[in-house]
Amino acid sequence: MAGQRKLRMGMVGGGPGAFIGPVHRIAAELDGKIELVAGAFSQSADRSKAAGEMYKIDPARAYSDYRAMIEGEKKREDRIDFVAIVTPNHLHMPVAVAALEAAFPVMSDKPATATYAEAVELEKAVAKSGLPYGLTHTYAGYSLVREARQMCASGELGTIRKIAVEYLQGWLTNPIETSGQKQAAWRSDPAQSGAGGCIGDIGTHAFHLTEYVTGLKVVGVNASLLSVVPGRKLDDDCTALLRMNNDAQCVLMTSQIAAGERNDMRLRIYGEKGSLEWHQEEPNGLSVKWQDGPEEIRHAAGGYLSESAKAVTRLPGGHPEGYLEAFAVLYREFADVLNASQDKWQAKLPPTLPGIEAGVRGMRFIDRAVESSKRKSWVEF
Amino acid sequence: MAGQRKLRMGMVGGGPGAFIGPVHRIAAELDGKIELVAGAFSQSADRSKAAGEMYKIDPARAYSDYRAMIEGEKKREDRIDFVAIVTPNHLHMPVAVAALEAAFPVMSDKPATATYAEAVELEKAVAKSGLPYGLTHTYAGYSLVREARQMCASGELGTIRKIAVEYLQGWLTNPIETSGQKQAAWRSDPAQSGAGGCIGDIGTHAFHLTEYVTGLKVVGVNASLLSVVPGRKLDDDCTALLRMNNDAQCVLMTSQIAAGERNDMRLRIYGEKGSLEWHQEEPNGLSVKWQDGPEEIRHAAGGYLSESAKAVTRLPGGHPEGYLEAFAVLYREFADVLNASQDKWQAKLPPTLPGIEAGVRGMRFIDRAVESSKRKSWVEF
Amino acid sequence: MAGQRKLRMGMVGGGPGAFIGPVHRIAAELDGKIELVAGAFSQSADRSKAAGEMYKIDPARAYSDYRAMIEGEKKREDRIDFVAIVTPNHLHMPVAVAALEAAFPVMSDKPATATYAEAVELEKAVAKSGLPYGLTHTYAGYSLVREARQMCASGELGTIRKIAVEYLQGWLTNPIETSGQKQAAWRSDPAQSGAGGCIGDIGTHAFHLTEYVTGLKVVGVNASLLSVVPGRKLDDDCTALLRMNNDAQCVLMTSQIAAGERNDMRLRIYGEKGSLEWHQEEPNGLSVKWQDGPEEIRHAAGGYLSESAKAVTRLPGGHPEGYLEAFAVLYREFADVLNASQDKWQAKLPPTLPGIEAGVRGMRFIDRAVESSKRKSWVEF
Amino acid sequence: MAGQRKLRMGMVGGGPGAFIGPVHRIAAELDGKIELVAGAFSQSADRSKAAGEMYKIDPARAYSDYRAMIEGEKKREDRIDFVAIVTPNHLHMPVAVAALEAAFPVMSDKPATATYAEAVELEKAVAKSGLPYGLTHTYAGYSLVREARQMCASGELGTIRKIAVEYLQGWLTNPIETSGQKQAAWRSDPAQSGAGGCIGDIGTHAFHLTEYVTGLKVVGVNASLLSVVPGRKLDDDCTALLRMNNDAQCVLMTSQIAAGERNDMRLRIYGEKGSLEWHQEEPNGLSVKWQDGPEEIRHAAGGYLSESAKAVTRLPGGHPEGYLEAFAVLYREFADVLNASQDKWQAKLPPTLPGIEAGVRGMRFIDRAVESSKRKSWVEF
Repeated sequence: MAGQRKLRMGMVGGGPGAFIGPVHRIAAELDGKIELVAGAFSQSADRSKAAGEMYKIDPARAYSDYRAMIEGEKKREDRIDFVAIVTPNHLHMPVAVAALEAAFPVMSDKPATATYAEAVELEKAVAKSGLPYGLTHTYAGYSLVREARQMCASGELGTIRKIAVEYLQGWLTNPIETSGQKQAAWRSDPAQSGAGGCIGDIGTHAFHLTEYVTGLKVVGVNASLLSVVPGRKLDDDCTALLRMNNDAQCVLMTSQIAAGERNDMRLRIYGEKGSLEWHQEEPNGLSVKWQDGPEEIRHAAGGYLSESAKAVTRLPGGHPEGYLEAFAVLYREFADVLNASQDKWQAKLPPTLPGIEAGVRGMRFIDRAVESSKRKSWVEF
Repeated sequence: MAGQRKLRMGMVGGGPGAFIGPVHRIAAELDGKIELVAGAFSQSADRSKAAGEMYKIDPARAYSDYRAMIEGEKKREDRIDFVAIVTPNHLHMPVAVAALEAAFPVMSDKPATATYAEAVELEKAVAKSGLPYGLTHTYAGYSLVREARQMCASGELGTIRKIAVEYLQGWLTNPIETSGQKQAAWRSDPAQSGAGGCIGDIGTHAFHLTEYVTGLKVVGVNASLLSVVPGRKLDDDCTALLRMNNDAQCVLMTSQIAAGERNDMRLRIYGEKGSLEWHQEEPNGLSVKWQDGPEEIRHAAGGYLSESAKAVTRLPGGHPEGYLEAFAVLYREFADVLNASQDKWQAKLPPTLPGIEAGVRGMRFIDRAVESSKRKSWVEF
Repeated sequence: MAGQRKLRMGMVGGGPGAFIGPVHRIAAELDGKIELVAGAFSQSADRSKAAGEMYKIDPARAYSDYRAMIEGEKKREDRIDFVAIVTPNHLHMPVAVAALEAAFPVMSDKPATATYAEAVELEKAVAKSGLPYGLTHTYAGYSLVREARQMCASGELGTIRKIAVEYLQGWLTNPIETSGQKQAAWRSDPAQSGAGGCIGDIGTHAFHLTEYVTGLKVVGVNASLLSVVPGRKLDDDCTALLRMNNDAQCVLMTSQIAAGERNDMRLRIYGEKGSLEWHQEEPNGLSVKWQDGPEEIRHAAGGYLSESAKAVTRLPGGHPEGYLEAFAVLYREFADVLNASQDKWQAKLPPTLPGIEAGVRGMRFIDRAVESSKRKSWVEF
Repeated sequence: MAGQRKLRMGMVGGGPGAFIGPVHRIAAELDGKIELVAGAFSQSADRSKAAGEMYKIDPARAYSDYRAMIEGEKKREDRIDFVAIVTPNHLHMPVAVAALEAAFPVMSDKPATATYAEAVELEKAVAKSGLPYGLTHTYAGYSLVREARQMCASGELGTIRKIAVEYLQGWLTNPIETSGQKQAAWRSDPAQSGAGGCIGDIGTHAFHLTEYVTGLKVVGVNASLLSVVPGRKLDDDCTALLRMNNDAQCVLMTSQIAAGERNDMRLRIYGEKGSLEWHQEEPNGLSVKWQDGPEEIRHAAGGYLSESAKAVTRLPGGHPEGYLEAFAVLYREFADVLNASQDKWQAKLPPTLPGIEAGVRGMRFIDRAVESSKRKSWVEF
């Protein structure tokens, strides 16, 4: 694959009314390396067709079923190069497996699957296929998250001793899932969302960010999952203590009933020499507080940043980049993997791009958090 | 007591090298209602004398023992009107009891005592004396803490469903108690500090602030206390889940090994309609995030604030008041209690001024947190 | 033009090493309505070819001269729908005129031309052509700039009485134009940049933002232009008082030698009832300070925002959008103009999209500021 | 003067309803070196008596005329040690001269006098007396203002090339001086306030801060003074360009009709290597932006601060100090001057404490700004 043309993407999910479909489309195309050319956007043929028109793709390539898309594309000379999965959670696994079996690499929205058992199964399917499988843990694409990761890896902060991660939203403050809000409906339905509500939808992001930035692994979980809104089937507010493999403790707090909060994800990491704090809603600054010196604010695109951080910005300092740009970084890295392969796809992802291992760990986290909360005690990870 | 003269304060503790003694002196005198006239500043006669000179009081009234101060002052025509206690924790109780028995009202630094058992005993002594006993939970004196308290009381936020309170410091990141730092030494010594380290020193502030602002009471505790620095005898990092009496859950996080943090106390309260956030390091703003409208920032001294908030600022908006001013509010309210009494001291404090009840609850909190952490499970409060 | 396919864009400028070319490409394509298909990216054939490969366009459509591009494209069935101009300033006018004469609508980077005289000439060419001409004053594309504009239009703030606008950068702190930095070199060269240095490069953005948001017009200018760095031919630091057509005064401050600043553009508008403040580096919040109530922070994507503000965000609240997204809004609105035209292009732009009138006023502003600074006195606009 | 007792202060002005009287009382007494013992608080005997009761001073020392106070105190054994002047501006000079002639050192609120001519005269009186004369330019007392001053002196920022100082308030947005608001009434009356309105009341603070921090001197002024509110006799909004003695330019913006602003004083200083920014409303942080490195936030009480900054805080980091504490620093330094004198008062102030020279320059600034605004041109300072 020479990189002389754009890679062709086929999307599953993302039909009218979806939030995340257009996000994937923009992110995939932003760096000029990928174009959306096909999709099974909805299980309704009419809706899939409408989405195809919205995306301005060839009507013949707006399929109403992901199997049809896979079959149809396999026959084309100008077939898609990979499949992007943006459906509700319960379809992530079957679509991914089908794509991989048809030799299409996969870029999937998170969480990887609906259950931990599925994730283990999917991991096998990925291994068997030898194909690249990427997982869009968006926040991993922010430049200053990369900087924080590099700081932990380099030991700048000293031994890490305490972590506080939180992800707070308020949009499920009221039981809107009972009144037709589509995004809320599937997320609150165990059949479509899996065993975790808030812990699965956004807790996994917080979990992933923690391991991704610190380089540490969770080895124990003590979680408290609550359904604060009466009648809600899944958790909407969770707090967990996590024991890391270096014995540091992490406090993870996540909620979707935090009225007034938008998308308030924060990560604080305390080492022996200093600490860092990053906040998703103002992603272009990273606070570093030294025990023995002034606080530093590292700004995106600063010439003093690590190479890993500088590699993923597109604009000079002071020109804010946001969520879509971070998302696009993951697609760019995925495209680079595909473009680097000569004869066959190269399954190995760069360490900065989350893949199936992160997916399995995320599902394991949900599983362990649910179990710990039931038992009201610590459980091994 | 007619208020035509300043009230006379005698201080126990606060000798050379103490941090909190001068703070109490400034706070007590700031609003022009109290003057420091006597003290048993240190158990060393020389040091107490030196402190007396520093404070510019009559050398005859710089005692080297609190019992001597109480005896000496009782005999004077111009005797002190009350005793302020600013010693290490283990002396709080004996000094308070001695003062009350000699008919002197007491203003004490927190925590009220070194153990829960002592607190119960002290509560009885206060009741028996019929005298005012105030506790300097400083943060209760901030104007916007009063505003937040009023917002909870009025129901503006709707039913409170989630609370997050944190108090993070980094000054015990290294084992400075082993190298002669006086503040660190007594706080890390169970004999002087009591059963709680971080949880007692600053966790109690967070606990008090939570109950003070929300008007709710803690009924269950699930705490994890850690001694992160090797060899430290007391906890230096704690996380606790608290169940409030309306079933809301509170996440309390406190640490003294959070490298780089100064005095980072934050309170967030989530109701059904919106939430509020207050941060001690920038105390003159209160963020209110409505579920259905723009975020509000209420600024100290704003004409739109509640009467309770406006009553405790001294300057027009934009002229920052800080820690000393908040501290002074408590002394002012204490002075008002004394001045309001005609023949005998009026024991009843205004609801805004923490007293022995808050002191007992704080000690109970330490006791329950230590117990829960040992048992690794929830305990009743 | 039915909107059933993407509009085809041909770009002039934006070759290797250019900052703004890729920005225009991303912005144009972001909303899925436009694709870059041709370009005269550089006057060097090799460099233009290399850019074509980078952009992954048909090699046959990577021209080495804008005239060649216009001629070549005119002959194609699948010809470009419009021309985007991203060259240094002195080429803006000739390229725009050539495109318009060949019946291609134009989307131009700012400033519209190199001199005021050229701008007047270009205005005539636009009028004669009857074609759409858009100008990428990027900051006009931010959602909260639209909110601020709507607030001024609605009279919410009362009569506007004072404006403070500033745009500070530090990248020309040192004379980097003498050591081969390409961006600095042409901007510091009157032959390529025009009569204004800092005032032309970024002062025009501040000027435009002021008129755009307030709806007022500048009628008088009193400017002080400085060349702080020795040897620099053009101004690098400017302050101007502006008299608006309602007699309000605006203080405009701009600099490129403000060491340490990145892209610090701020707008403050003071009305009789309150004021607003917007800051480009944190573009997703708008502070509104009422004279008689709490400060408000309006956040991007809030349900309470004006329709005009809500129309230009793509993500839920708390998912930050930035500079590229704002830029893309202008291209989206330009695409909508083209798509709305049936037989011939519709020249009329929506009031939210800057066009040639804004371009002429911007060039007039540079001209008047330079003149005022020479005379050291007020001049009429 | 041995410092073994508190210094005794007599205050002129500051009667009931005054804002600044209690501020001076608190500030003077805060560090335990001074006590208020006498005053001529009002020209009404009843009001002065009421103030004396409020301040809890000996009724015999609540005078109704400053001359009576000076005469009365001269006769006492325990006479006052100095006079604090907190009247409206037009009385500053006569009171100061009377006090100095009676051998009382003076601590005066700013501006030093009502006119420049008076200031020159007062300067002579101070010189003749050989007594200490301090001027309460409050903002000079903030720790991080001292840090900024030290940074300029040490050359850390390189040559200073640009300054932006602003002081914005909104409290005169409406013509409240016509409806009995006392503070507004005298400030808007040339007979009591002098030739400058906003420029005199707060512009002088901005002017002083600029010279105080940078160590530079203003040598040219180009000012625009406006009376935005119809019927107002004095300016309420001013912008001035200042030429410094090293040719740097300073933009000074001040307003009292900036609706919604409280006490928004900001200082930005741009050197060749970096810049600093300080904001009075959040005074415990100082932003330092390096051209080639991360932004720094220096926090009050940080161990890394300059000695001059550390000398004037009282609390550990993270315990906010504010306006009163800054004010108190000036009184503390004044007390130290008095206490350091053996036989007679030592007239020489430390360089950190503003005195008559600053007072004369401030009045000159008002004079030059008014003149420049009339002439609509630059004037020499």
